Amino acid sequence: MSLPPITHCTTRQDCLEHDRADPLAGLRDQFDLPAGVIYLDGNSLGARPRAALQRAQQVIAQEWGTDLIRSWNKAGWFDLPLRLGNQLARLIGAGVDEVVITDSISINLFKLLAGALEMQAALPDGAQRKVIVSERDNFPTDLYMAQGLTEWLDRGYRIRLVDSPQELATAIDAETAVVMLTHVNYRTGHQYDLPAVTALVHAQAALVIWDLAHSAGAVPVDLQAAQADFAVGCTYKYLNGGPGSPAFAWMAPRHHAAFRQPLSGWWSHQAPFAMQPGYTAAEGIRRMLCGTQPIVSLALIECGLATFATTSMAALRTKSLALTDLFIALVERRCAGHGLALITPRAHHERGSHVSFVHPHGYGVMRALIARGVIGDYREPGVIRFGFTPLYIGYADVWDAVEVLRQILDDQEYDVAAQQDAVT
Amino acid sequence: MSLPPITHCTTRQDCLEHDRADPLAGLRDQFDLPAGVIYLDGNSLGARPRAALQRAQQVIAQEWGTDLIRSWNKAGWFDLPLRLGNQLARLIGAGVDEVVITDSISINLFKLLAGALEMQAALPDGAQRKVIVSERDNFPTDLYMAQGLTEWLDRGYRIRLVDSPQELATAIDAETAVVMLTHVNYRTGHQYDLPAVTALVHAQAALVIWDLAHSAGAVPVDLQAAQADFAVGCTYKYLNGGPGSPAFAWMAPRHHAAFRQPLSGWWSHQAPFAMQPGYTAAEGIRRMLCGTQPIVSLALIECGLATFATTSMAALRTKSLALTDLFIALVERRCAGHGLALITPRAHHERGSHVSFVHPHGYGVMRALIARGVIGDYREPGVIRFGFTPLYIGYADVWDAVEVLRQILDDQEYDVAAQQDAVT
Repeated sequence: MSLPPITHCTTRQDCLEHDRADPLAGLRDQFDLPAGVIYLDGNSLGARPRAALQRAQQVIAQEWGTDLIRSWNKAGWFDLPLRLGNQLARLIGAGVDEVVITDSISINLFKLLAGALEMQAALPDGAQRKVIVSERDNFPTDLYMAQGLTEWLDRGYRIRLVDSPQELATAIDAETAVVMLTHVNYRTGHQYDLPAVTALVHAQAALVIWDLAHSAGAVPVDLQAAQADFAVGCTYKYLNGGPGSPAFAWMAPRHHAAFRQPLSGWWSHQAPFAMQPGYTAAEGIRRMLCGTQPIVSLALIECGLATFATTSMAALRTKSLALTDLFIALVERRCAGHGLALITPRAHHERGSHVSFVHPHGYGVMRALIARGVIGDYREPGVIRFGFTPLYIGYADVWDAVEVLRQILDDQEYDVAAQQDAVT
Repeated sequence: MSLPPITHCTTRQDCLEHDRADPLAGLRDQFDLPAGVIYLDGNSLGARPRAALQRAQQVIAQEWGTDLIRSWNKAGWFDLPLRLGNQLARLIGAGVDEVVITDSISINLFKLLAGALEMQAALPDGAQRKVIVSERDNFPTDLYMAQGLTEWLDRGYRIRLVDSPQELATAIDAETAVVMLTHVNYRTGHQYDLPAVTALVHAQAALVIWDLAHSAGAVPVDLQAAQADFAVGCTYKYLNGGPGSPAFAWMAPRHHAAFRQPLSGWWSHQAPFAMQPGYTAAEGIRRMLCGTQPIVSLALIECGLATFATTSMAALRTKSLALTDLFIALVERRCAGHGLALITPRAHHERGSHVSFVHPHGYGVMRALIARGVIGDYREPGVIRFGFTPLYIGYADVWDAVEVLRQILDDQEYDVAAQQDAVT
């Protein structure tokens, strides 16, 4: 029996057959997903690995409760940011001791941007490099951090925002110090060509900081091959590290020696236990650290990373594209005439692992979906967003989600949802 | 039967009688302490409240695993930093919506110091106020953060370090922008007179930032009564929030409107879900927030704070002083002639809730103590440090700890410990 091509599936049975043939189908058993829910929001908060509960018990009962302060050495708490960083590295094409897990994306962006601006200011033409290029549709907190940093430094830095990826080529020029972009857009799911944009940035002697929040664990990334400079990313989305789990930061080894950052806390000190009054930065990526980390949340990231142990980003990407292809095809076929407009690129190389549609009643539609157990999310303006995590989403899930969406649109259930919203 | 005064206890039996008469003795049942351990390091990592394991299960299994992304509203994740801050407030004399729990002490110090310097620069004589006063023996990371910030800002700010508390009065002058001090010294246990020093600072029109890492939950603090300006502190020491649990930050309401800080992430935005590209700070203490917080570690703080529910800082302080008085008296009586030198103030009003002695073989002594289940810690140079948490430490514990210390000193067990150390 031959499988229909994924975009030609016309029945739930077709989708089930794809599930049966899916070499990654077994990975779902690693997760504890609630019954009656199709979870298409792993791009916002990844599902819970089964192992997380036991690991939390171990950290809380044994490491904290029994071993107490001794766990800093015995349980390796002090090494956790680098140890976890090394486990994450292969998912983003980074090398050994190039990644740390610490703090939040916002704070890591501040460190990287401050350090990159200082490195650029030291160039012969540094005084002329006063522009940070980003895009208006970047994830807002990235822009807020750049705004906070530049206003605080008050050295004439300007933020230049492009309105579309196409404007980048002209926006990056000899005035550009740093380009700060999110690899996969949080709203549209548009994916930049990371190597090509990196080359564009370097051609102007600028530095690039990639935000991999919607990339790490979602799409293949090879920071080393692209010769990128800096990156940050999230562990609580596709990496399933748990709510608000600390973020990661990466720096190319060629920058390690020159890089400084202003959040110079004890954990980045060359001799953190010598208790010296003066600060000297540690060698290597450890200089990206700052203060004490939330150990329980940090430790749980290991369970999220472990869910990738038996697969590869290439295999996950193949399935991710099949899932998003199927979703787009089914929505456009089965929900036609209901005013849904796709804002996610159709071209594979421009697409991340989520799909977004705009709808005039987007908010009400998503509310109705969630009420019926299909969990995606809503983003202004009018965007309903669906994340596809190949680790735990199957093809029949896609079929079922589209059927619920179709019923809601056919029955205009979004009006009811909006009315309930007005009452409550 | 009348109890002997605490410093007159000469037998273990005397101590047991004090335990029997202790109105706080029952609080120990809230904690799960390992058998065979006397835990005198709650000033570094507080013991585990029994409730923490169940709360972690609830957060991980229910809030994360089952409710998934809906927990941001349903479980109140978004409000956690303020809700926990409000629970903590009474322990430090703060009011409603004046405290947030977020990030680390290091990062919160950076925010407060940046904001305070900017406020001071706006004074008529702001251009002359270029000095940050602190002390050489401050907790190192506090100094590292000030160093990082001032070097980065590059506007002529200088850090003036005093070598003893007595020098403060002359060190704070009309050039002083901000005074940054740790209320209870991490090494000596010396406690500043917070209201008096605050008045001294204000007399020079400077602002004060108090680090309450070794104060919150350890000694009574009344920030409002002292008219202090800013404070940070720790939740994983005396507040028993769990390893590396996020820190707190406090700001007097009179500063809320003028205060800005450069780590301007989404959580401090006026409209965090409107996804606007421009940053506008939220009103009030929420402007101290930055990026996404580690929810599991954050949520566990509630269990730590709950251990204070049935008592008061006044009652805890009475017992804390009795414990440290007893420890000092017993060590000086029973370990006399062994070269231990007290570096903690004898005067009650100058003492925190831990006691430190210097010993020529301090490192070996502490290693031997820990090997025998008496857990304190070691700090350079030669300091053995013992924290007394009245919530879970009793008078017989103090007796037993001193007996072990006496045996180690009598038998010079610290040599063995040092030799083992050289081998391993």
